[in-house]
Amino acid sequence: MESKGFSEKHRVTYYETDMNGTVGLGRLVDLMMLSCNDQSDAVGLSSEKVNQMGLGWIVTQNMIDIKRLPRRNETIYITTHAKSYNCYFCYRDFWIHDIRKQELAHMHTVFALMDQNERKIVRIPENLIEPYHSEYATKIERLPLPKELERIDRQKEYEVRFWDIDINQHVNNVHYFEWMLDALDLDFLIKYQPVSMNIEYKKEIRYGQKAVSQAQITMTGVETVTTFHEIKVNDELSCRAVCDWKLRKEEWIM
Amino acid sequence: MESKGFSEKHRVTYYETDMNGTVGLGRLVDLMMLSCNDQSDAVGLSSEKVNQMGLGWIVTQNMIDIKRLPRRNETIYITTHAKSYNCYFCYRDFWIHDIRKQELAHMHTVFALMDQNERKIVRIPENLIEPYHSEYATKIERLPLPKELERIDRQKEYEVRFWDIDINQHVNNVHYFEWMLDALDLDFLIKYQPVSMNIEYKKEIRYGQKAVSQAQITMTGVETVTTFHEIKVNDELSCRAVCDWKLRKEEWIM
Repeated sequence: MESKGFSEKHRVTYYETDMNGTVGLGRLVDLMMLSCNDQSDAVGLSSEKVNQMGLGWIVTQNMIDIKRLPRRNETIYITTHAKSYNCYFCYRDFWIHDIRKQELAHMHTVFALMDQNERKIVRIPENLIEPYHSEYATKIERLPLPKELERIDRQKEYEVRFWDIDINQHVNNVHYFEWMLDALDLDFLIKYQPVSMNIEYKKEIRYGQKAVSQAQITMTGVETVTTFHEIKVNDELSCRAVCDWKLRKEEWIM
Repeated sequence: MESKGFSEKHRVTYYETDMNGTVGLGRLVDLMMLSCNDQSDAVGLSSEKVNQMGLGWIVTQNMIDIKRLPRRNETIYITTHAKSYNCYFCYRDFWIHDIRKQELAHMHTVFALMDQNERKIVRIPENLIEPYHSEYATKIERLPLPKELERIDRQKEYEVRFWDIDINQHVNNVHYFEWMLDALDLDFLIKYQPVSMNIEYKKEIRYGQKAVSQAQITMTGVETVTTFHEIKVNDELSCRAVCDWKLRKEEWIM
Protein backbone atom coordinates (compact mmCIF):
# COMPACT_ATOMS: atom_id res chain seq x y z
CA MET A 1 0.00 0.00 0.00
CA GLU A 2 1.43 3.37 -1.01
CA SER A 3 1.32 6.47 1.11
CA LYS A 4 -1.10 8.20 -1.25
CA GLY A 5 -3.48 5.26 -1.03
CA PHE A 6 -6.38 5.03 1.38
CA SER A 7 -7.42 1.93 3.29
CA GLU A 8 -10.23 0.91 5.62
CA LYS A 9 -11.60 -2.14 7.42
CA HIS A 10 -15.14 -3.41 6.81
CA ARG A 11 -17.25 -6.25 8.16
CA VAL A 12 -19.48 -7.76 5.46
CA THR A 13 -23.07 -7.74 6.79
CA TYR A 14 -25.66 -10.42 6.01
CA TYR A 15 -27.62 -8.03 3.80
CA GLU A 16 -24.52 -7.37 1.68
CA THR A 17 -24.46 -11.03 0.65
CA ASP A 18 -26.72 -13.16 -1.55
CA MET A 19 -28.01 -16.76 -1.66
CA ASN A 20 -24.44 -17.96 -2.25
CA GLY A 21 -23.38 -16.52 1.11
CA THR A 22 -21.00 -14.14 -0.67
CA VAL A 23 -21.03 -10.53 -1.85
CA GLY A 24 -22.50 -10.09 -5.36
CA LEU A 25 -20.49 -8.29 -8.06
CA GLY A 26 -22.47 -5.05 -7.78
CA ARG A 27 -22.06 -4.97 -4.01
CA LEU A 28 -18.34 -5.71 -4.46
CA VAL A 29 -18.06 -2.51 -6.48
CA ASP A 30 -20.08 -0.64 -3.82
CA LEU A 31 -17.59 -1.81 -1.20
CA MET A 32 -14.63 -0.67 -3.27
CA MET A 33 -16.24 2.70 -4.01
CA LEU A 34 -16.75 3.13 -0.26
CA SER A 35 -12.98 3.61 0.17
CA CYS A 36 -12.97 6.19 -2.61
CA ASN A 37 -15.88 8.08 -1.04
CA ASP A 38 -14.17 8.02 2.35
CA GLN A 39 -10.87 9.21 0.86
CA SER A 40 -12.73 12.08 -0.85
CA ASP A 41 -14.41 13.02 2.45
CA ALA A 42 -11.01 12.88 4.18
CA VAL A 43 -9.40 15.31 1.71
CA GLY A 44 -12.43 17.63 1.90
CA LEU A 45 -13.83 16.80 -1.54
CA SER A 46 -17.02 14.88 -0.71
CA SER A 47 -19.50 14.02 -3.48
CA GLU A 48 -21.84 16.64 -1.98
CA LYS A 49 -19.15 19.32 -2.31
CA VAL A 50 -18.35 18.37 -5.92
CA ASN A 51 -22.10 18.36 -6.54
CA GLN A 52 -22.45 21.91 -5.20
CA MET A 53 -19.94 22.99 -7.89
CA GLY A 54 -22.43 21.63 -10.45
CA LEU A 55 -20.15 18.65 -11.14
CA GLY A 56 -20.14 14.91 -10.45
CA TRP A 57 -17.63 12.09 -10.83
CA ILE A 58 -18.80 9.35 -13.16
CA VAL A 59 -17.26 5.99 -14.05
CA THR A 60 -16.62 5.25 -17.74
CA GLN A 61 -15.00 1.82 -17.34
CA ASN A 62 -14.45 -0.84 -14.67
CA MET A 63 -12.11 -3.81 -14.96
CA ILE A 64 -12.44 -6.29 -12.12
CA ASP A 65 -10.47 -9.42 -11.21
CA ILE A 66 -11.93 -11.66 -8.52
CA LYS A 67 -9.91 -14.32 -6.72
CA ARG A 68 -12.61 -14.97 -4.12
CA LEU A 69 -15.79 -13.09 -3.22
CA PRO A 70 -15.97 -11.83 0.39
CA ARG A 71 -18.22 -13.95 2.61
CA ARG A 72 -21.00 -13.11 5.04
CA ASN A 73 -19.54 -11.74 8.31
CA GLU A 74 -16.00 -11.69 6.92
CA THR A 75 -13.78 -8.75 7.85
CA ILE A 76 -12.02 -7.27 4.84
CA TYR A 77 -9.65 -4.44 4.02
CA ILE A 78 -10.62 -2.09 1.21
CA THR A 79 -7.87 -0.01 -0.39
CA THR A 80 -7.92 2.61 -3.11
CA HIS A 81 -5.21 4.53 -4.92
CA ALA A 82 -5.65 7.39 -7.40
CA LYS A 83 -3.00 6.19 -9.83
CA SER A 84 -2.82 8.80 -12.59
CA TYR A 85 -4.82 11.39 -14.50
CA ASN A 86 -4.89 13.49 -17.64
CA CYS A 87 -7.10 16.40 -18.73
CA TYR A 88 -10.29 14.35 -18.90
CA PHE A 89 -9.74 11.04 -17.14
CA CYS A 90 -8.66 9.76 -13.74
CA TYR A 91 -7.35 6.22 -13.30
CA ARG A 92 -7.93 4.64 -9.92
CA ASP A 93 -7.21 1.19 -8.50
CA PHE A 94 -9.05 -0.66 -5.78
CA TRP A 95 -8.21 -3.79 -3.83
CA ILE A 96 -10.00 -6.01 -1.34
CA HIS A 97 -7.87 -8.14 0.98
CA ASP A 98 -8.82 -10.63 3.68
CA ILE A 99 -7.52 -10.33 7.25
CA ARG A 100 -4.44 -12.37 6.30
CA LYS A 101 -3.69 -9.75 3.62
CA GLN A 102 -4.53 -12.15 0.79
CA GLU A 103 -5.91 -10.30 -2.24
CA LEU A 104 -9.57 -11.15 -2.92
CA ALA A 105 -10.30 -8.66 -5.70
CA HIS A 106 -8.72 -5.87 -7.73
CA MET A 107 -10.47 -3.20 -9.80
CA HIS A 108 -9.10 -0.66 -12.23
CA THR A 109 -11.52 2.21 -12.86
CA VAL A 110 -11.66 5.15 -15.24
CA PHE A 111 -13.38 8.25 -13.85
CA ALA A 112 -14.48 11.38 -15.66
CA LEU A 113 -16.09 14.58 -14.44
CA MET A 114 -19.62 15.42 -15.60
CA ASP A 115 -21.26 18.83 -15.75
CA GLN A 116 -24.61 18.31 -13.98
CA ASN A 117 -26.52 20.73 -16.22
CA GLU A 118 -24.94 19.98 -19.60
CA ARG A 119 -24.71 16.21 -18.82
CA LYS A 120 -21.33 16.27 -20.59
CA ILE A 121 -17.78 15.37 -19.63
CA VAL A 122 -15.64 18.40 -18.73
CA ARG A 123 -11.93 19.10 -18.21
CA ILE A 124 -10.86 18.19 -14.65
CA PRO A 125 -9.92 21.32 -12.66
CA GLU A 126 -6.59 21.06 -10.80
CA ASN A 127 -8.16 21.66 -7.35
CA LEU A 128 -10.35 18.54 -7.69
CA ILE A 129 -7.42 16.25 -8.43
CA GLU A 130 -4.44 17.76 -6.56
CA PRO A 131 -5.38 16.50 -3.03
CA TYR A 132 -5.14 12.87 -4.22
CA HIS A 133 -1.41 13.22 -5.13
CA SER A 134 -2.07 11.39 -8.35
CA GLU A 135 0.51 11.24 -11.16
CA TYR A 136 -0.09 13.38 -14.24
CA ALA A 137 0.10 11.33 -17.45
CA THR A 138 -0.45 12.88 -20.85
CA LYS A 139 -1.44 9.56 -22.42
CA ILE A 140 -4.99 8.25 -22.39
CA GLU A 141 -4.97 4.59 -21.34
CA ARG A 142 -5.99 2.17 -24.10
CA LEU A 143 -7.91 -0.49 -22.19
CA PRO A 144 -9.47 -3.54 -23.83
CA LEU A 145 -13.17 -3.00 -24.56
CA PRO A 146 -15.98 -5.57 -24.34
CA LYS A 147 -17.19 -6.89 -27.70
CA GLU A 148 -20.62 -6.50 -29.26
CA LEU A 149 -23.16 -9.29 -28.71
CA GLU A 150 -23.33 -11.83 -31.55
CA ARG A 151 -26.69 -13.17 -30.44
CA ILE A 152 -29.15 -12.68 -27.58
CA ASP A 153 -29.49 -15.75 -25.34
CA ARG A 154 -31.25 -13.99 -22.45
CA GLN A 155 -33.21 -10.77 -22.24
CA LYS A 156 -35.03 -8.95 -19.43
CA GLU A 157 -36.54 -5.52 -18.99
CA TYR A 158 -35.81 -3.25 -16.03
CA GLU A 159 -37.70 -0.12 -15.11
CA VAL A 160 -35.64 2.47 -13.21
CA ARG A 161 -36.59 2.58 -9.52
CA PHE A 162 -36.20 5.38 -6.98
CA TRP A 163 -33.37 3.50 -5.24
CA ASP A 164 -31.40 3.12 -8.49
CA ILE A 165 -30.79 6.88 -8.70
CA ASP A 166 -27.66 8.42 -7.18
CA ILE A 167 -26.26 11.87 -6.39
CA ASN A 168 -25.74 12.50 -10.15
CA GLN A 169 -29.51 12.05 -10.73
CA HIS A 170 -29.02 9.00 -12.92
CA VAL A 171 -28.88 5.23 -12.41
CA ASN A 172 -25.83 4.37 -10.33
CA ASN A 173 -23.39 2.08 -12.18
CA VAL A 174 -23.78 -0.56 -9.53
CA HIS A 175 -27.38 -1.19 -10.55
CA TYR A 176 -26.20 -2.03 -14.08
CA PHE A 177 -24.52 -5.09 -12.54
CA GLU A 178 -27.82 -6.21 -11.05
CA TRP A 179 -29.57 -5.83 -14.42
CA MET A 180 -26.78 -7.51 -16.38
CA LEU A 181 -26.35 -10.49 -14.07
CA ASP A 182 -29.98 -11.01 -13.02
CA ALA A 183 -30.77 -11.54 -16.72
CA LEU A 184 -28.62 -14.70 -16.55
CA ASP A 185 -31.08 -16.15 -14.01
CA LEU A 186 -30.84 -17.90 -10.62
CA ASP A 187 -29.60 -21.30 -11.85
CA PHE A 188 -26.64 -19.71 -13.63
CA LEU A 189 -25.74 -17.48 -10.67
CA ILE A 190 -25.72 -20.44 -8.28
CA LYS A 191 -23.78 -22.69 -10.65
CA TYR A 192 -21.00 -20.26 -11.60
CA GLN A 193 -18.85 -17.70 -9.80
CA PRO A 194 -17.34 -14.64 -11.50
CA VAL A 195 -13.62 -14.54 -12.29
CA SER A 196 -13.34 -11.19 -14.06
CA MET A 197 -15.52 -8.50 -15.59
CA ASN A 198 -14.88 -5.59 -17.93
CA ILE A 199 -17.64 -2.96 -18.14
CA GLU A 200 -17.76 0.06 -20.41
CA TYR A 201 -20.38 2.72 -19.60
CA LYS A 202 -21.60 4.56 -22.69
CA LYS A 203 -24.66 6.61 -21.78
CA GLU A 204 -26.46 7.48 -18.57
CA ILE A 205 -29.96 6.18 -17.76
CA ARG A 206 -32.42 8.41 -15.93
CA TYR A 207 -35.53 8.04 -13.79
CA GLY A 208 -38.63 7.06 -15.75
CA GLN A 209 -36.67 5.15 -18.41
CA LYS A 210 -36.97 1.46 -19.15
CA ALA A 211 -33.81 -0.54 -19.86
CA VAL A 212 -33.41 -3.84 -21.61
CA SER A 213 -30.61 -6.14 -20.47
CA GLN A 214 -29.38 -8.61 -23.10
CA ALA A 215 -26.90 -11.42 -22.57
CA GLN A 216 -24.99 -13.95 -24.65
CA ILE A 217 -23.73 -17.09 -22.88
CA THR A 218 -20.72 -18.83 -24.45
CA MET A 219 -19.13 -21.97 -22.99
CA THR A 220 -15.35 -21.60 -23.18
CA GLY A 221 -14.36 -24.86 -21.47
CA VAL A 222 -15.90 -27.74 -19.53
CA GLU A 223 -16.18 -25.61 -16.39
CA THR A 224 -15.78 -22.08 -17.77
CA VAL A 225 -18.22 -19.69 -19.40
CA THR A 226 -17.99 -16.19 -20.82
CA THR A 227 -21.06 -13.97 -20.82
CA PHE A 228 -21.46 -10.83 -22.92
CA HIS A 229 -23.86 -8.09 -21.87
CA GLU A 230 -25.53 -5.01 -23.29
CA ILE A 231 -27.95 -2.62 -21.63
CA LYS A 232 -30.00 -0.49 -23.95
CA VAL A 233 -32.65 2.21 -23.64
CA ASN A 234 -34.77 2.62 -26.76
CA ASP A 235 -32.15 0.69 -28.78
CA GLU A 236 -29.41 3.08 -27.64
CA LEU A 237 -26.45 1.42 -25.91
CA SER A 238 -25.94 2.42 -22.26
CA CYS A 239 -23.42 -0.15 -21.20
CA ARG A 240 -21.47 -3.12 -22.58
CA ALA A 241 -19.66 -5.81 -20.60
CA VAL A 242 -17.91 -9.15 -20.71
CA CYS A 243 -17.68 -11.50 -17.74
CA ASP A 244 -15.68 -14.71 -17.24
CA TRP A 245 -17.08 -17.39 -14.93
CA LYS A 246 -15.99 -20.72 -13.48
CA LEU A 247 -17.93 -23.52 -11.86
CA ARG A 248 -18.64 -22.68 -8.21
CA LYS A 249 -16.63 -25.10 -6.10
CA GLU A 250 -16.75 -23.56 -2.66
CA GLU A 251 -19.26 -25.18 -0.32
CA TRP A 252 -20.87 -21.99 0.75
CA ILE A 253 -24.30 -22.38 -0.80
CA MET A 254 -27.01 -22.23 1.81
CA MET B 1 -31.29 -1.49 27.40
CA GLU B 2 -31.99 -4.70 29.27
CA SER B 3 -29.42 -7.37 29.99
CA LYS B 4 -31.08 -9.82 27.60
CA GLY B 5 -30.93 -7.27 24.80
CA PHE B 6 -28.19 -7.09 22.20
CA SER B 7 -26.62 -3.90 20.91
CA GLU B 8 -24.08 -2.92 18.28
CA LYS B 9 -22.56 0.15 16.64
CA HIS B 10 -22.81 0.79 12.89
CA ARG B 11 -21.59 3.46 10.52
CA VAL B 12 -24.13 4.18 7.75
CA THR B 13 -22.28 3.88 4.41
CA TYR B 14 -23.07 6.00 1.35
CA TYR B 15 -24.60 2.99 -0.45
CA GLU B 16 -27.04 2.45 2.43
CA THR B 17 -28.58 5.86 1.76
CA ASP B 18 -30.68 7.26 -1.08
CA MET B 19 -31.14 10.56 -2.95
CA ASN B 20 -32.40 12.15 0.28
CA GLY B 21 -29.07 11.43 1.97
CA THR B 22 -30.82 9.17 4.47
CA VAL B 23 -31.45 5.44 4.88
CA GLY B 24 -34.61 4.22 3.09
CA LEU B 25 -37.28 2.32 5.03
CA GLY B 26 -36.24 -1.09 3.67
CA ARG B 27 -32.61 -0.49 4.55
CA LEU B 28 -33.70 0.71 8.02
CA VAL B 29 -35.27 -2.71 8.56
CA ASP B 30 -32.09 -4.39 7.22
CA LEU B 31 -30.06 -2.46 9.79
CA MET B 32 -32.35 -3.49 12.62
CA MET B 33 -32.36 -7.12 11.51
CA LEU B 34 -28.54 -7.01 11.55
CA SER B 35 -28.61 -6.85 15.36
CA CYS B 36 -30.97 -9.83 15.46
CA ASN B 37 -28.73 -11.84 13.12
CA ASP B 38 -25.67 -10.98 15.19
CA GLN B 39 -27.44 -11.91 18.44
CA SER B 40 -28.42 -15.26 16.88
CA ASP B 41 -24.82 -15.86 15.80
CA ALA B 42 -23.64 -14.96 19.32
CA VAL B 43 -25.96 -17.51 20.99
CA GLY B 44 -24.99 -20.17 18.43
CA LEU B 45 -28.27 -20.13 16.49
CA SER B 46 -27.26 -18.58 13.16
CA SER B 47 -29.73 -18.55 10.25
CA GLU B 48 -27.53 -21.19 8.57
CA LYS B 49 -27.87 -23.48 11.61
CA VAL B 50 -31.66 -23.04 11.78
CA ASN B 51 -31.71 -23.67 8.03
CA GLN B 52 -29.83 -26.95 8.43
CA MET B 53 -32.67 -28.09 10.73
CA GLY B 54 -35.04 -27.56 7.79
CA LEU B 55 -36.45 -24.43 9.41
CA GLY B 56 -36.33 -20.68 8.91
CA TRP B 57 -37.48 -17.61 10.85
CA ILE B 58 -39.97 -15.49 8.95
CA VAL B 59 -41.56 -12.15 9.79
CA THR B 60 -45.36 -11.93 9.85
CA GLN B 61 -45.71 -8.30 10.93
CA ASN B 62 -43.57 -5.17 11.36
CA MET B 63 -44.63 -1.98 13.12
CA ILE B 64 -42.16 0.86 12.76
CA ASP B 65 -42.01 4.35 14.27
CA ILE B 66 -39.47 6.75 12.81
CA LYS B 67 -38.40 9.94 14.55
CA ARG B 68 -35.54 10.61 12.14
CA LEU B 69 -33.93 8.48 9.43
CA PRO B 70 -30.18 7.82 9.91
CA ARG B 71 -27.99 9.95 7.64
CA ARG B 72 -25.08 9.11 5.35
CA ASN B 73 -21.89 8.52 7.39
CA GLU B 74 -23.77 8.76 10.70
CA THR B 75 -22.76 6.37 13.48
CA ILE B 76 -25.76 4.69 15.07
CA TYR B 77 -26.49 2.12 17.78
CA ILE B 78 -28.76 -0.78 16.86
CA THR B 79 -30.44 -2.67 19.70
CA THR B 80 -32.72 -5.69 19.76
CA HIS B 81 -34.61 -7.47 22.52
CA ALA B 82 -36.56 -10.74 22.22
CA LYS B 83 -39.50 -9.57 24.34
CA SER B 84 -41.84 -12.57 24.60
CA TYR B 85 -43.06 -15.69 22.83
CA ASN B 86 -45.82 -18.27 22.73
CA CYS B 87 -46.15 -21.62 20.90
CA TYR B 88 -46.13 -20.09 17.41
CA PHE B 89 -44.96 -16.49 17.62
CA CYS B 90 -41.98 -14.52 18.88
CA TYR B 91 -42.24 -10.82 19.64
CA ARG B 92 -39.10 -8.80 19.24
CA ASP B 93 -38.31 -5.10 19.55
CA PHE B 94 -35.63 -3.10 17.76
CA TRP B 95 -34.30 0.40 18.31
CA ILE B 96 -31.92 2.71 16.50
CA HIS B 97 -30.27 5.49 18.52
CA ASP B 98 -27.86 8.23 17.50
CA ILE B 99 -24.51 8.71 19.28
CA ARG B 100 -26.16 11.00 21.83
CA LYS B 101 -28.53 8.10 22.66
CA GLN B 102 -31.53 9.86 21.11
CA GLU B 103 -34.02 7.35 19.70
CA LEU B 104 -34.28 7.53 15.89
CA ALA B 105 -36.52 4.54 15.22
CA HIS B 106 -38.35 1.72 17.00
CA MET B 107 -39.74 -1.48 15.46
CA HIS B 108 -41.95 -4.17 16.93
CA THR B 109 -41.79 -7.42 14.96
CA VAL B 110 -43.67 -10.71 15.00
CA PHE B 111 -41.61 -13.75 14.01
CA ALA B 112 -42.77 -17.28 13.23
CA LEU B 113 -40.87 -20.42 12.32
CA MET B 114 -41.38 -21.94 8.86
CA ASP B 115 -40.78 -25.53 7.79
CA GLN B 116 -38.65 -25.20 4.64
CA ASN B 117 -40.21 -28.21 2.91
CA GLU B 118 -43.85 -27.81 3.91
CA ARG B 119 -43.66 -23.98 3.63
CA LYS B 120 -45.89 -23.84 6.73
CA ILE B 121 -45.57 -22.30 10.18
CA VAL B 122 -44.59 -24.78 12.88
CA ARG B 123 -44.53 -24.85 16.68
CA ILE B 124 -41.33 -23.24 18.01
CA PRO B 125 -39.07 -25.82 19.70
CA GLU B 126 -37.78 -24.78 23.13
CA ASN B 127 -34.10 -25.03 22.12
CA LEU B 128 -34.56 -22.36 19.43
CA ILE B 129 -36.02 -19.82 21.83
CA GLU B 130 -34.44 -20.54 25.21
CA PRO B 131 -31.03 -18.87 24.52
CA TYR B 132 -32.74 -15.48 24.03
CA HIS B 133 -34.12 -15.44 27.62
CA SER B 134 -37.44 -14.27 26.28
CA GLU B 135 -40.58 -14.22 28.43
CA TYR B 136 -43.23 -16.91 27.83
CA ALA B 137 -46.68 -15.40 27.30
CA THR B 138 -49.72 -17.57 26.58
CA LYS B 139 -51.56 -14.72 24.85
CA ILE B 140 -51.20 -13.95 21.17
CA GLU B 141 -50.71 -10.21 20.70
CA ARG B 142 -53.60 -8.46 18.94
CA LEU B 143 -51.84 -5.81 16.90
CA PRO B 144 -53.66 -3.33 14.65
CA LEU B 145 -53.75 -4.50 11.04
CA PRO B 146 -53.48 -2.37 7.89
CA LYS B 147 -56.79 -1.82 6.08
CA GLU B 148 -57.72 -2.95 2.60
CA LEU B 149 -57.23 -0.48 -0.27
CA GLU B 150 -60.36 1.49 -1.21
CA ARG B 151 -58.96 2.48 -4.58
CA ILE B 152 -55.74 2.14 -6.57
CA ASP B 153 -53.94 5.46 -7.14
CA ARG B 154 -50.58 3.97 -8.21
CA GLN B 155 -49.65 0.58 -9.57
CA LYS B 156 -46.34 -0.99 -10.71
CA GLU B 157 -45.21 -4.49 -11.57
CA TYR B 158 -42.10 -6.11 -10.11
CA GLU B 159 -40.47 -9.28 -11.34
CA VAL B 160 -38.55 -11.21 -8.66
CA ARG B 161 -34.78 -10.85 -9.13
CA PHE B 162 -31.95 -13.10 -7.96
CA TRP B 163 -30.91 -10.59 -5.29
CA ASP B 164 -34.45 -10.46 -3.83
CA ILE B 165 -34.20 -14.08 -2.62
CA ASP B 166 -32.96 -14.87 0.89
CA ILE B 167 -31.89 -17.92 2.92
CA ASN B 168 -35.55 -19.06 3.05
CA GLN B 169 -35.64 -19.28 -0.76
CA HIS B 170 -38.27 -16.59 -1.06
CA VAL B 171 -38.35 -12.81 -1.48
CA ASN B 172 -36.90 -11.18 1.61
CA ASN B 173 -39.40 -8.89 3.39
CA VAL B 174 -37.13 -5.94 2.91
CA HIS B 175 -37.69 -6.01 -0.85
CA TYR B 176 -41.44 -5.61 -0.27
CA PHE B 177 -40.62 -2.13 1.06
CA GLU B 178 -38.83 -1.26 -2.16
CA TRP B 179 -41.81 -2.43 -4.24
CA MET B 180 -44.40 -0.72 -2.02
CA LEU B 181 -42.62 2.62 -1.81
CA ASP B 182 -41.14 2.79 -5.33
CA ALA B 183 -44.72 2.58 -6.65
CA LEU B 184 -45.31 6.01 -5.04
CA ASP B 185 -42.69 7.51 -7.39
CA LEU B 186 -39.66 9.79 -7.03
CA ASP B 187 -41.52 13.09 -6.51
CA PHE B 188 -43.48 11.66 -3.58
CA LEU B 189 -40.39 10.11 -1.96
CA ILE B 190 -38.48 13.38 -2.14
CA LYS B 191 -41.40 15.48 -0.89
CA TYR B 192 -42.39 13.36 2.12
CA GLN B 193 -40.59 11.45 4.87
CA PRO B 194 -42.04 8.41 6.65
CA VAL B 195 -43.33 8.71 10.22
CA SER B 196 -44.61 5.18 10.83
CA MET B 197 -45.40 1.99 8.94
CA ASN B 198 -47.38 -1.15 9.75
CA ILE B 199 -46.81 -4.15 7.46
CA GLU B 200 -48.57 -7.49 7.56
CA TYR B 201 -47.01 -10.33 5.54
CA LYS B 202 -49.59 -12.81 4.26
CA LYS B 203 -47.94 -15.09 1.71
CA GLU B 204 -44.41 -15.67 0.48
CA ILE B 205 -43.29 -14.77 -3.04
CA ARG B 206 -40.81 -17.00 -4.87
CA TYR B 207 -38.31 -16.73 -7.71
CA GLY B 208 -39.93 -16.54 -11.15
CA GLN B 209 -43.09 -14.84 -9.88
CA LYS B 210 -44.31 -11.39 -10.86
CA ALA B 211 -45.76 -9.12 -8.20
CA VAL B 212 -48.00 -6.12 -8.55
CA SER B 213 -47.63 -3.28 -6.05
CA GLN B 214 -50.73 -1.13 -5.59
CA ALA B 215 -50.99 2.05 -3.54
CA GLN B 216 -53.66 4.46 -2.35
CA ILE B 217 -52.58 7.99 -1.41
CA THR B 218 -54.80 9.87 1.05
CA MET B 219 -54.05 13.41 2.28
CA THR B 220 -54.74 13.56 6.02
CA GLY B 221 -53.70 17.17 6.63
CA VAL B 222 -51.98 20.07 4.89
CA GLU B 223 -48.57 18.48 5.37
CA THR B 224 -49.46 14.86 6.16
CA VAL B 225 -50.35 11.90 3.98
CA THR B 226 -51.28 8.29 4.60
CA THR B 227 -50.50 5.67 1.96
CA PHE B 228 -52.04 2.20 1.83
CA HIS B 229 -50.27 -0.65 0.07
CA GLU B 230 -50.97 -4.12 -1.24
CA ILE B 231 -48.64 -6.52 -3.00
CA LYS B 232 -50.31 -9.29 -4.95
CA VAL B 233 -49.21 -12.24 -7.07
CA ASN B 234 -51.90 -13.46 -9.46
CA ASP B 235 -54.53 -11.53 -7.46
CA GLU B 236 -53.51 -13.30 -4.25
CA LEU B 237 -52.48 -10.97 -1.41
CA SER B 238 -48.85 -11.28 -0.28
CA CYS B 239 -48.55 -8.22 1.89
CA ARG B 240 -50.60 -5.26 3.14
CA ALA B 241 -49.31 -2.06 4.71
CA VAL B 242 -50.16 1.44 5.86
CA CYS B 243 -47.64 4.26 6.07
CA ASP B 244 -47.90 7.77 7.56
CA TRP B 245 -45.82 10.54 6.04
CA LYS B 246 -45.04 14.20 6.73
CA LEU B 247 -43.58 16.93 4.56
CA ARG B 248 -39.78 16.61 4.45
CA LYS B 249 -38.35 19.62 6.24
CA GLU B 250 -34.72 18.64 6.78
CA GLU B 251 -32.33 20.26 4.35
CA TRP B 252 -30.55 17.09 3.42
CA ILE B 253 -31.64 16.73 -0.18
CA MET B 254 -28.64 16.66 -2.49
